[in-house]
Amino acid sequence: MRYNKNGDDMKVSVGISLRHIHLTDEDYNLLFDEPIKEKSPLNQPGQFSAEQTVTLEKNGRELQNVRLIGPTRAYTQVEISRTDAYYLKIDPPVRESGHLEGAEEITIKTNKGQITRKAVIIADRHIHITKEDREKYNLLKDEYEIKVPGEKGGVLSHVHIKEAPNSYYELHLDSDDANAFHIKTNDELEIL
Amino acid sequence: MRYNKNGDDMKVSVGISLRHIHLTDEDYNLLFDEPIKEKSPLNQPGQFSAEQTVTLEKNGRELQNVRLIGPTRAYTQVEISRTDAYYLKIDPPVRESGHLEGAEEITIKTNKGQITRKAVIIADRHIHITKEDREKYNLLKDEYEIKVPGEKGGVLSHVHIKEAPNSYYELHLDSDDANAFHIKTNDELEIL
Repeated sequence: MRYNKNGDDMKVSVGISLRHIHLTDEDYNLLFDEPIKEKSPLNQPGQFSAEQTVTLEKNGRELQNVRLIGPTRAYTQVEISRTDAYYLKIDPPVRESGHLEGAEEITIKTNKGQITRKAVIIADRHIHITKEDREKYNLLKDEYEIKVPGEKGGVLSHVHIKEAPNSYYELHLDSDDANAFHIKTNDELEIL
Repeated sequence: MRYNKNGDDMKVSVGISLRHIHLTDEDYNLLFDEPIKEKSPLNQPGQFSAEQTVTLEKNGRELQNVRLIGPTRAYTQVEISRTDAYYLKIDPPVRESGHLEGAEEITIKTNKGQITRKAVIIADRHIHITKEDREKYNLLKDEYEIKVPGEKGGVLSHVHIKEAPNSYYELHLDSDDANAFHIKTNDELEIL
């Protein structure tokens, strides 16, 4: 797949995911008294960065001010980079969101309280897309490769297609991929 | 270049370079009173991690315990990752060692004193090799691509060949590349 139906190189814009947390209703209420409050919307419809943050703690190390992404979900999940994982001395698996088999345990703390959950993953590289866009752009395979230009460019493999209704067409990468390849939010990258 | 003269895939073992500093004799003497002391040898003949470390300071941010690599050199140079660069709020160029055009300014501190130098780069991806090995392995181009397996694998482009006498054949990558692609020291990667 090199060209879309207009014969152009197929591109996708990038969103960089910094470390963040998703919470269930139940876990949210263990950590916060006030209702969840939107700070700024994300490109994915209905999703937002919340005013609320947590501290992650493991093996005597802490990561503070870790942003909550709202609204609450059916699962509590912490997404970090491998750089973070080395700092916390854990080895989380690379996973699609919501697939928590083998996820690492972490303690999640706020002023109100703390919980410990097997919830830490490194997010896989993925492209959000609707069924309609997938057909329109001819992105019918399960995964693609992405070409990155520049002095520290290359190819990112195993970029999974994540089809869902009301998706905003966008490539999500973590901060390690972004920093290694010097990719920035809203960069337009080529799908191979 | 896909095969060496035996018809095997051409491989190279990896050394991960964490943030570090090289100093001239003059700058070393401004920062330390004692002679430089070897802590552990590196694979490159004659090079070593020193007991000595420095603190890097810029824009109110500090990186402590940054390792000195010995022996002293003809230039003072600080090699950091882009993750470090974001933390220090600077934008260093990607450069071959010793090529300091456009290098970012940094303050280098020890108990003895401090100096400020335009010395910060992000090291290019490179393979150390002798002229003899280069001919033996048929690595005659200036740069190659490296294939990385795994769930967060892909291809690293612009891997420069760095020919010098007494080199140990080895691919040097920074911690951002290592963390993004989950590469570890002594991994064997394929040269494309």
